[in-house]
This record gives sequence, structure tokens and C-alpha cells, in this order.
Amino acid sequence: TQHYRITLLPGDGIGPEIMAVAVRVLKTISEKFDLSFEFQEALIGGAAIDATGEPLPAATLETCKKSDAVLLAAIGGYKWDTLPRHLRPETGLLGLRSGLHLFANLRPATILPQLIDASTLKREIVEGVDIMVVRELTGGIYFGQPRGIFTTETGEKRGVNTMAYTESEIDRIGRVAFETAQKRSKRLCSVDKANVLEVSQLWRDRMTALAIEYPDVELSHLYVDNAAMQLVRAPKQFDTIVTSNLFGDILSDAAAMLTGSIGMLPSASLGASAPGVYEPVHGSAPDIAGQDKANPLAQVLSAAMMLRYSFNQPDAATHIEQAVLKVLDQGYRTGDIMSEGNTLVGCQAIGDALVAAL
Amino acid sequence: TQHYRITLLPGDGIGPEIMAVAVRVLKTISEKFDLSFEFQEALIGGAAIDATGEPLPAATLETCKKSDAVLLAAIGGYKWDTLPRHLRPETGLLGLRSGLHLFANLRPATILPQLIDASTLKREIVEGVDIMVVRELTGGIYFGQPRGIFTTETGEKRGVNTMAYTESEIDRIGRVAFETAQKRSKRLCSVDKANVLEVSQLWRDRMTALAIEYPDVELSHLYVDNAAMQLVRAPKQFDTIVTSNLFGDILSDAAAMLTGSIGMLPSASLGASAPGVYEPVHGSAPDIAGQDKANPLAQVLSAAMMLRYSFNQPDAATHIEQAVLKVLDQGYRTGDIMSEGNTLVGCQAIGDALVAAL
Ligand SMILES: CC(C)[C@H](C(=O)O)[C@@H](O)C(=O)O
Ligand SMILES: CC(C)[C@H](C(=O)O)[C@@H](O)C(=O)O
Repeated sequence: TQHYRITLLPGDGIGPEIMAVAVRVLKTISEKFDLSFEFQEALIGGAAIDATGEPLPAATLETCKKSDAVLLAAIGGYKWDTLPRHLRPETGLLGLRSGLHLFANLRPATILPQLIDASTLKREIVEGVDIMVVRELTGGIYFGQPRGIFTTETGEKRGVNTMAYTESEIDRIGRVAFETAQKRSKRLCSVDKANVLEVSQLWRDRMTALAIEYPDVELSHLYVDNAAMQLVRAPKQFDTIVTSNLFGDILSDAAAMLTGSIGMLPSASLGASAPGVYEPVHGSAPDIAGQDKANPLAQVLSAAMMLRYSFNQPDAATHIEQAVLKVLDQGYRTGDIMSEGNTLVGCQAIGDALVAAL
Repeated sequence: TQHYRITLLPGDGIGPEIMAVAVRVLKTISEKFDLSFEFQEALIGGAAIDATGEPLPAATLETCKKSDAVLLAAIGGYKWDTLPRHLRPETGLLGLRSGLHLFANLRPATILPQLIDASTLKREIVEGVDIMVVRELTGGIYFGQPRGIFTTETGEKRGVNTMAYTESEIDRIGRVAFETAQKRSKRLCSVDKANVLEVSQLWRDRMTALAIEYPDVELSHLYVDNAAMQLVRAPKQFDTIVTSNLFGDILSDAAAMLTGSIGMLPSASLGASAPGVYEPVHGSAPDIAGQDKANPLAQVLSAAMMLRYSFNQPDAATHIEQAVLKVLDQGYRTGDIMSEGNTLVGCQAIGDALVAAL
């Protein structure tokens, strides 16, 4: 029996409800595949602020570090939006990313045949879309120094952030991206703004240099404005996309929304050695929290990603993914992906259907 | 007779062809509305590099400064893509923007009923979309210092750019945006990344403060990742958007592509006193240059914007806009907007039809 320690970070809003479903699914799968999971729950985000006064208590980071993987739900809510920056839920998330050195964020945007009508784009444009965005997660303008709000000589305020990358920071995310592309259709598009920014010029130079080591991968480059256009114009042209922290934030959300069903999309944040963090792409949806209306499938698919990437249990992962497809084929839908002819159910009922399908 | 001096910057690729059509239209309209236009042509971009060795010769900037408005077509092409940064076409464009202090970039994304099928989005999602993106154009990360590629203590290269805004820079673009929203449906959405960036926090604070002076405008805020999502999910929720240089670059292109016909979209770049620059949103399309295939309508609509914003000649502007609609109603289409049942024509033939319609 393989034994794994999993830290659960349910966070805020719909987090606890969708996490409960993922845990049920993991428990079910553990019996079937003779795996043993030890779950520890820890506080993050608004829930942590309320309980301890900080969005990422030291104890949480410690617990995460000692585990084999971290399953995160969602953080944030109106309640904490007006707090100073160091006390905000987002700051906890950024601290988790840098504290665990999770420099690589993998965000798939795949469209399921069952949900194609949920997209705002025409069927022929999005049918078969299968994009993997590899986003750098611990560098760039999110963490660059100097940063802050300063007072100029003339006495007015000036807000400053720094977008910076070193060659080694670019290379390590580049390698993850080339290796990801190798396992997919071997096409990698690097997105930057090299016609204006020096940091992007270095990014482009390093990606071009790395490409020599991956001759089987076809590398292309796009400026970020053009990439945003091309995602809307013809998303099927993309396979793997690699980009910096800020551009990846924007483009992965745009790519996710092309599918029309962001309640379905998982993500993985990985480092060189520390445990990976798996979480849905969607947010904490405070407006529907506690009402059994949330879609738990992105959380469940995040657990599947964890099995695949961190535990190297591809069969168990595939089993979960197939259970998700089966539940959709059975016509069960939460409100966010509901369409005519299907059955509207709640978060827990999706959990029941998943367990039955497993 | 009102007299106006117009500098023409045809630039590269399809630039000269589409500019020729706009000039024909302007000449026709000048007779009808008793206006007198004096045209001077000047070099910019690749054409200027080839002729003078620099992308923005001092003579060009001087000519622009002495004119009442500048009509720009498009710059850039593969030929100049590998030159060092200070010798690239884009650098000429950035120099023009800062040299003329054009801090406000207005980019409409409107969908014409005649071209609704050109959109990759479903008809019901884009029908009636009418967005105005007000992008800050002379600040932010495009111009922030320090910038460059430096060597760290450990001997590796580090690329650095600085995203910075002062309060007065934010206020002046904010005022343009509030005033623009006042003339439209009085809804303004400010886009930033205030949950991560201090420069965005200052941006949000100033927008919120300015809102008090414009009580008739309803101000909302979105994070840039969410804005990219919302543009894809439900573009009709937007009226006027105000944002920084980089975010505006990305979001205005995404918004433009929602319409499916970027060959139709004009833009205006305005300063406090210097002449404004009017140009299409699309690029120089070197692959179809010189083949009479380009769509000149964005260039023509840019000329109309010039008449409206810089010359205060709304009737002449409307007259041009109506001629454009008439030509579309007659079924004339260039390749980029061609669809079944219409007549495929070239750039010059569109010019003929426009002149006839005027
Ligand atoms: C909450 C926020 C700090 C975060 C980010 O910008 O990275 C989120 O948008 C995301 O993409 O995970
Ligand atoms: C050509 C480039 C420098 C420019 C920009 O990034 O501003 C272009 O993309 C635009 O949007 O006008």
C-alpha cells in the first residue's frame, strides 16, 4: 500500500463544500487502487485571517511542506477585500506559492464535448480545444523589487512595480514547458512583449536558446496582445503556451473562459522538489457559498491531477476523470453548466453520482 | 473655408494602399463640407529605417508637431524584426506617442450588424457590442525606468522593466475616461491588478477619488485577469473601459477581435494640446502588401475620427461613417470580411465605392 500525506486547504466561500466532495472521491479511489491517504486540514485565506489574523499562518506552510501534496480549494471574498495588502487572502496564496517555490503553474483549458454549448464561441471554433498554459509563478512583476507607493520630489505619490526575470528563472520554466509540450502535440508557443520590454527580450532569447535542446518541439513566439487576439480568433492553433507570471494570469483566464465552463478546470502548481499544490481555476464564489450550488468537478479534477503529477498514479487519475465524464453523460449538472435536457443537481449530489460512478 | 494641415504617415506593408483610399475620401469630403486639407507625407517605421536609418526621423516629428492632426497607417514587417531595439519600427511608434505626449488612446470595439457573422462568438453574445477602451499611452511599463538587461552578481543576465504611474498621470487619463463615459452610456470600468500590484492600488485609489467629481458616471473595478474573462463571457456588460498602457494593449486587442473584423476598427491617440494621431487598430499585414487586397475601412474610419475629435467636424465624420455602412450594405467586401452572398473586391474598388457613396 502506497501511503501519501495530503494537506487540505479548503479556504473560503464554496471551498469547504467542493473540498468535501474531492475528499469523498479520494477516499473511494484509495480503496479501489490500494492507496492510503492521510489528510490534514490547514487554514489559508480569509478563513485564516479570521482565525489567526494572517492569511498564511506559519503552521499552514509547515504542514504543507511536510506533506506529499497540497489540495487547495479557493480563497477570498468581499469581507476581506478592504484589508491592507499584507492581510489579504491573495497575499496568503502568493506566500504559499513562493514559500513552496512553486515556479511552474500548469493550467489546462480543455473543452469537453458534453459542455461545448456552454462556450460563448461558435461550436466549430472551440470544438476540440485543448490548450495547456505553463505560467511562471514565483517571479516577474508579482514578486519584483523595488515595489511600493513612494513620494516623488514634487510631493506626489508614485506607484512602482518591477517586472524582472533572470536567465535561470526563465530556463527552469522553459524546461517545464518544453517537457510538457513533448508529452503533448510538441508545439510550444512562447508569449512575451519583446517588441517593447527588455525583460521579454531576454525571455525570448532564452526560449530560443533552449529550443536547441528540444529539437522535437516546434517553438513559436507571439506578442501578448496578439496572443490574446489569437485565443479569441482561432484557439485551436494552440497546444502548449509558456509565459510569464502576469501574462499567464491574463491569458490562462481568457483561455479558460473560451471553454465556457471554468467550473470544470483544474490546475497544478509545481516546484523542483517541494509538494505541488492542486486547485481549481475558478474562485471562491462567495455569492453561492454554503448553498450546495457549487460545481465540485474542477476540485475533483484537481485531485486527479495530483494523483497523476505528484503521486505518479495515472490509472487512479484516469479513473476519476472517467467518472467525471460519466456523471456528465448521465446528465447531472450544477447551475453553472446547466443546459436544456439535463438534470440540475447540487454539489453533494454530484459527489454521490461520482462515488457511484467510481 | 476651414483649413487643416494633416500629416500622413503611410508607414509599411499595406499602409500606403489604405492611406491612398483615406486621402481620396478626405478630398471628396472636403469639397462637400467646404473644408480645405493640406497633406504632408512623412516617413515612419520600416520605411523610415530604409530611407534614413532611424524609425522616427526628427523631421517627421517636427512635421507632425506643426500639423493639426496626424493620420497614421501601419508600421512594421518581418524585414525589420531582427534589428536592435532602437532601430525597430515599433520604437518609432513609441517615440511618436511620447514625442507628441499622446497619453490617451481611444480604441472603440464596435460590431456592425452587417459583419456580425465574422465574429467567432455567438451572435447573441456579440450583437450590439459597443466598447470604448481608454488606454493610457505614454506611461506605465512601456516607458518606466530602470529598464534594460543587466548582469547580476552571480554573472547571469537579468531583464528588468518598471511599471510605474504617478497620481497626475493616472488622473489625466482618468479624466479623459470619465468624460468619454459621460458622452456614452455613463458606465466606466477601471481595470487593474490591485490585489497584487502597488501601482494598480494607486490607480484604483485615484479612479475612486476622481469618481466623486463625476457623480453621473457609474464606476466599477475589475482585475485584469477577470476583465479578460468577462470580455469573452459577456462583452455587452462593458461600455467604457479605462486601463494602463500594458493592460490596454492586451484588452483592446482582445476586445477588437471579439468583433471578428479588426480591419474595420479605427483608433485615436490624443494629448493635452499636441495634434492627435489617428490609425487603424490592425497591423501592416506584410503578407498581402501591394496586392490590392487590404481592407481600407479602418483607415477611412480613422480619418472620420480625426474629423470628429481633432477638427470638431461631426457632420463630415458622420457622412464618412455612413458611406462606409452604405458600401457594406451594397455587399462590397475585402477578403478579411468576405462572406457568402457578398462581392469580393480589392482595396481600390472599396475606395471607388466610397467616393461614389459620398
Ligand atoms: C488571486 C490572485 C493573486 C491570483 C493571481 O493573480 O495569480 C489569481 O488571479 C490566479 O490566477 O491564481
Ligand atoms: C507595435 C506595439 C509597440 C504597439 C503597442 O504595444 O502599443 C501595438 O501593439 C499597439 O497596440 O499599438
